[in-house]
Amino acid sequence: MSSPAFSHLDADGTARMVDVSAKPVQRRIAKAEGFIACSTETIQALRDQKIPKGDVLTVARIAAIQAAKKTDDLIPLCHGLPLDQIDLDFEIQESGVAIRATSITSAKTGVEMESLTAVSVAALTIYDMCKAVDKAMVIGSIRVTEKIKE
Amino acid sequence: MSSPAFSHLDADGTARMVDVSAKPVQRRIAKAEGFIACSTETIQALRDQKIPKGDVLTVARIAAIQAAKKTDDLIPLCHGLPLDQIDLDFEIQESGVAIRATSITSAKTGVEMESLTAVSVAALTIYDMCKAVDKAMVIGSIRVTEKIKE
Amino acid sequence: MSSPAFSHLDADGTARMVDVSAKPVQRRIAKAEGFIACSTETIQALRDQKIPKGDVLTVARIAAIQAAKKTDDLIPLCHGLPLDQIDLDFEIQESGVAIRATSITSAKTGVEMESLTAVSVAALTIYDMCKAVDKAMVIGSIRVTEKIKE
Amino acid sequence: MSSPAFSHLDADGTARMVDVSAKPVQRRIAKAEGFIACSTETIQALRDQKIPKGDVLTVARIAAIQAAKKTDDLIPLCHGLPLDQIDLDFEIQESGVAIRATSITSAKTGVEMESLTAVSVAALTIYDMCKAVDKAMVIGSIRVTEKIKE
Amino acid sequence: MSSPAFSHLDADGTARMVDVSAKPVQRRIAKAEGFIACSTETIQALRDQKIPKGDVLTVARIAAIQAAKKTDDLIPLCHGLPLDQIDLDFEIQESGVAIRATSITSAKTGVEMESLTAVSVAALTIYDMCKAVDKAMVIGSIRVTEKIKE
Amino acid sequence: MSSPAFSHLDADGTARMVDVSAKPVQRRIAKAEGFIACSTETIQALRDQKIPKGDVLTVARIAAIQAAKKTDDLIPLCHGLPLDQIDLDFEIQESGVAIRATSITSAKTGVEMESLTAVSVAALTIYDMCKAVDKAMVIGSIRVTEKIKE
Repeated sequence: MSSPAFSHLDADGTARMVDVSAKPVQRRIAKAEGFIACSTETIQALRDQKIPKGDVLTVARIAAIQAAKKTDDLIPLCHGLPLDQIDLDFEIQESGVAIRATSITSAKTGVEMESLTAVSVAALTIYDMCKAVDKAMVIGSIRVTEKIKE
Repeated sequence: MSSPAFSHLDADGTARMVDVSAKPVQRRIAKAEGFIACSTETIQALRDQKIPKGDVLTVARIAAIQAAKKTDDLIPLCHGLPLDQIDLDFEIQESGVAIRATSITSAKTGVEMESLTAVSVAALTIYDMCKAVDKAMVIGSIRVTEKIKE
Repeated sequence: MSSPAFSHLDADGTARMVDVSAKPVQRRIAKAEGFIACSTETIQALRDQKIPKGDVLTVARIAAIQAAKKTDDLIPLCHGLPLDQIDLDFEIQESGVAIRATSITSAKTGVEMESLTAVSVAALTIYDMCKAVDKAMVIGSIRVTEKIKE
Repeated sequence: MSSPAFSHLDADGTARMVDVSAKPVQRRIAKAEGFIACSTETIQALRDQKIPKGDVLTVARIAAIQAAKKTDDLIPLCHGLPLDQIDLDFEIQESGVAIRATSITSAKTGVEMESLTAVSVAALTIYDMCKAVDKAMVIGSIRVTEKIKE
Repeated sequence: MSSPAFSHLDADGTARMVDVSAKPVQRRIAKAEGFIACSTETIQALRDQKIPKGDVLTVARIAAIQAAKKTDDLIPLCHGLPLDQIDLDFEIQESGVAIRATSITSAKTGVEMESLTAVSVAALTIYDMCKAVDKAMVIGSIRVTEKIKE
Repeated sequence: MSSPAFSHLDADGTARMVDVSAKPVQRRIAKAEGFIACSTETIQALRDQKIPKGDVLTVARIAAIQAAKKTDDLIPLCHGLPLDQIDLDFEIQESGVAIRATSITSAKTGVEMESLTAVSVAALTIYDMCKAVDKAMVIGSIRVTEKIKE
């Protein structure tokens, strides 16, 4: 495998931003997911208490949306692009919370990093809000599940 | 478990920032780790090519340091605090890259969110730089490994 | 009134970002205004002293332009969009300063939040610069005055 | 009134940042309030619908906390300072929503601009989330209500 | 020369953002360069030590790319625009490091400020990383070398 | 000269943030200067037109203060620190504008990067505001002139 296979690296291995100026503007969608494993007590607390649960997940949702909008400030070689929508979905399961994000743009480059960033920051925010009661949470299974170009 | 157990929630479940004004300034250290699983080809490419490897990990390191410094902008209820140091360590293994972060502060509150954020953004940056050659990477095992208050 | 009437809320009341991917890019203009009430002495000082007045309003103007450009970082469910222009106008009156902002974009969504943000931050900046001499200022009457879609 | 009375202006009227290096670090609290006037229908919708209401105010709360933390990025001559706490309180009244913010710091300078910024951005966020159903909202009565130095 | 010749100033000299809403979206390229003068020892250290050199310049490159993307946050009257690419080139010479940047966009306004900002921040980053061993570095010769509109 | 002489590089040349946790908080001052060379016409325009001149330099001053406050966001290995003051001084000379900045902090590390950043961004802002009438400006002579630790 030759070095140029890494699209962010020059032939001599130097980090670079990909030139997208010749690419067409297209509608692009990317979905990502992740999971934060919590103790049974944390899950029970999230399930029982209507308002706190709403608030924990609402705060995580807002944090994720805000982070997705600044993906290009977090990931050095990402291009800035206008998000048409970023949507978050949470599912409280037996052993943790499943997080899914969908990003949509009309741009010259894809949005999988936006969805992955949204999922990651949502998980970090849940961690932050539950860490006083649960010291053993683990964030994982963060991956892209779908990528569409129309 | 009563709602106040969530330190970021009021008795009625409303999200709030914890008041740390009565807490003493102490030297605090927090370590976190994570892992990004890559294909054998990606690992081989990272291992073989001296400069690209250096660059991928250097870019990830810089992105992680920059993200740790803006943790309070990413995680809504985190306090801003001055980092004395944030250090990243990468280990290229058989099936992926292990990422470890150590944050140090002299502040009224701990820095585990800073270390977790650094690990997460380092993993996202590696993902971004390898995604042209590897579509199946998974980020996981992100957790706090040590927390010290001196 | 059913819940979906709130465009930022799902049918079940969850906060969400509106999907604008199907909307056409159009030239959009929005105007907003506001007022900061000051003491007679503050108004007199702003009127008499040529350079300070210039500077107070220039600083407020720059702060407002900068804030308008980061509206989507301040208002969680706002879309990022490229501003073609943001213009501020100040009028020193008997009992305070009237502030007017006009934002222009070519985008899929309107710019009233950009103009409202510009007016708000202009008022906050005037407050900050005059607060050493005037402890009783009040910011108000912030509203959209015109919205055009071409 | 001589020009130096404006603490942010030099003797010749040039904008400047106040030198606080000789001031002691003290615990400082500042409270501010504001009001967003809405139609009866908007108030009824906020009152009737449990989850949307919760979400509108939670989103406004998070936006306000995040904005307070970046006050020095919004108001050019403000000093950056570590917030020990920023707390928001909302009261749905007959003709609108009353917003109150309390900021606490241990720093060399006060936090009234942080509380005023929090109130302003909370109001702007409510405006953004209700503007699809209410075109005539007005934000006002934004002022400092208390300032304490311990 | 009349005042309107300054495109960022009104007829009466007030700072303003230029209205670009009537300008066409075009592919625009701008190149800039600069130089940081270092001691012979610093140059020798950069030349001899393979990994440090790589790292110093990689960190400078990343910092420059990140700064170029936030040019409109740094330069008050700049418009935000989507960068298709920003590329940095470093040349270690006898008495210092030459820095060149190329920015490409498809937008209504040019990108010379993006390239100048990239060069400036690259130089500042090299300064920061070498300042422990070299107290007499000087940054200079920062200028636009080419501007293309297609 | 061995690699550790670069304080931002490990023994093996890896970029790192210096650990300042054992350093005392001290009052620290750093001064920097720079110069933007302009055409005679630009200087004459800046000299003759009272308000535009005021405005160009006021905008540059505000941009510089704002940039100094976010130095740690621009220069990757810089620590965040609270600025007690950042002051800018401009002198219109025969062939250009001399820019001087003074930064003051009470922190564990120095502020020369803050002063250098302020000078650089002030020069970039002047460039931006004069570029419509002067295509040949050059920014240079940016250096630290004084560093004090009390």
